[in-house]
Amino acid sequence: MQEHDVVGIGNAIVDIIGRCDEAFLARHGCAKGSMQLVDAAAVAKLYADMGPAVEISGGSVANTIVGVASFGGQAGFIGKTARDQFGQVFSHDIRAAGVTFTTPAAAEGSDPTGRCLVLVTPDGQRTMSTFLGVSPQLGGGEVDAALIGSARIVYLEGYLFDRPEAKAAFRQAAQIAAKAGRQVALSLSDPFCVDRHRAEFRDLIRDSVDILFANESEITSLYQTASFDEAARQAQDDTKLAAITRSEKGSVIISGGKRTTVPAAPVAAVVDTTGAGDLYAAGFLYGVATGKDLETAGRLGSLAAAEIISHIGARPEVGLRELARKQGLLT
Amino acid sequence: MQEHDVVGIGNAIVDIIGRCDEAFLARHGCAKGSMQLVDAAAVAKLYADMGPAVEISGGSVANTIVGVASFGGQAGFIGKTARDQFGQVFSHDIRAAGVTFTTPAAAEGSDPTGRCLVLVTPDGQRTMSTFLGVSPQLGGGEVDAALIGSARIVYLEGYLFDRPEAKAAFRQAAQIAAKAGRQVALSLSDPFCVDRHRAEFRDLIRDSVDILFANESEITSLYQTASFDEAARQAQDDTKLAAITRSEKGSVIISGGKRTTVPAAPVAAVVDTTGAGDLYAAGFLYGVATGKDLETAGRLGSLAAAEIISHIGARPEVGLRELARKQGLLT
Repeated sequence: MQEHDVVGIGNAIVDIIGRCDEAFLARHGCAKGSMQLVDAAAVAKLYADMGPAVEISGGSVANTIVGVASFGGQAGFIGKTARDQFGQVFSHDIRAAGVTFTTPAAAEGSDPTGRCLVLVTPDGQRTMSTFLGVSPQLGGGEVDAALIGSARIVYLEGYLFDRPEAKAAFRQAAQIAAKAGRQVALSLSDPFCVDRHRAEFRDLIRDSVDILFANESEITSLYQTASFDEAARQAQDDTKLAAITRSEKGSVIISGGKRTTVPAAPVAAVVDTTGAGDLYAAGFLYGVATGKDLETAGRLGSLAAAEIISHIGARPEVGLRELARKQGLLT
Repeated sequence: MQEHDVVGIGNAIVDIIGRCDEAFLARHGCAKGSMQLVDAAAVAKLYADMGPAVEISGGSVANTIVGVASFGGQAGFIGKTARDQFGQVFSHDIRAAGVTFTTPAAAEGSDPTGRCLVLVTPDGQRTMSTFLGVSPQLGGGEVDAALIGSARIVYLEGYLFDRPEAKAAFRQAAQIAAKAGRQVALSLSDPFCVDRHRAEFRDLIRDSVDILFANESEITSLYQTASFDEAARQAQDDTKLAAITRSEKGSVIISGGKRTTVPAAPVAAVVDTTGAGDLYAAGFLYGVATGKDLETAGRLGSLAAAEIISHIGARPEVGLRELARKQGLLT
């Protein structure tokens, strides 16, 4: 099999993106900025109440993997879709981005392809309600060992821990990667996700993770502290390499007892923050997988995050390699 | 039934919008700027070859009707969807825009909801390949006579002539409207559509149409002349009221032997011309239905067209009433 820079495993999701005001979130009990898991009935109710929307392929790790490909990296994705129109959309978009995606769709009559209602408030912040559908029914048996083994870095999302079958896939992929001497990267996904799986995540990070991604609220949730410095100090003890994003404050890269602060890239107007963390991870992983120094990797992450928050949706609208070239970050 | 300013009948379509270069169009034999009808196999082939895309509800008349609602008008739509995810998307978006939409979806196992692959070249021009799916299976029996009778203006698209059942629905709606003393408006849709139905369109325009919408290439195709002036002269003889759009040259309104030229509204950057004509019609129809003078109606059309070409997709991203208020066109 062809070598890959990064292969990711995650939920295969189509985003349904609409605008709303703060009152709408309050009325529907949505905590602004968070991701909540909802069932089929709840997603239908919320959808019926929300305004006109656009559909764009999403999924946290899937967004990252498409970002890696957009930087010119060889990238692969493993995730479960149904044989429905959203499944076709997801599969088309990720393949059209140049990503290796061979996971078979579920049999006819399965749960539908996962979807995420993304509500964007006037400040550009996004609040997500996800109906996973068939997505977590990715069994351990469906993890393509050859694809995992072909990757310099295997990237996993914390969200996979929300369902037992997906967790089994997660654990199996981590084992295959470790056995093949590959690096394992993890995104903590969401502070509430961290709340749900704190103890397991901490063990995993100490034992099996080579590269950790988190934002400020996730890392402070993981270590149950209000202090970013305290959380960063604990991450320094627990991890080999961690990249912690802090919105407009940029990111902090922790490695070998050293912290490097990388500034955020400038953005003319923040339109929709969906995918900011995912695309930061894309730049950082592409940089690490291709041997760039950590600060350059962080700058590639900042650049990709800035591109993604300047428009609706979590998939890049312009080629990230070309963008990085213009900034002198890649040749 | 509640009174409506405008009720439209048209194909219910979800747009699948992606970017491509001119070479891609040439390779696939797509005539730039046109709309071609394709079958299920051809749409699948083209989709497989095109890049990542976004999905946004579309359909020419449906776009217009959503625009009328965005201006604050009472608007209704009649069109056929399937019981699939694209059908849910279309139905959700048009209702969420405040439009009366009660046409039942086709029974399970029908053809799928119609879709249009919209390929946008770097110059912002769009080239469309439409698979109509279940859309034209809107029989005459499904035209809601009460809804048609409730409308000041009934708006029909030339595209309906492409399939016999849809044409039957078109003719029935025109009859109901005429009997109820309502105005009938027609969009010529596309120069190739005019080519397919020239003789019938000419008869229809002379006998049954109160308001005609066309762009320059459609009106010159209708009268088989290379001269815009000659086409406009013939339209003056044939129609009571016609609004002819000329891209950046604005529009020419023909009424009672008089021509009024309305300038195009300024646009910072043309991103995607999809829906320019549809949204011009929205502003014009809203203006006429609510008793504005023809020049103001034309300016509302120019304003809506300028909004729609400044972003991807043919549904407004901001409230058109608010936009028109800021320009002093509405109070």
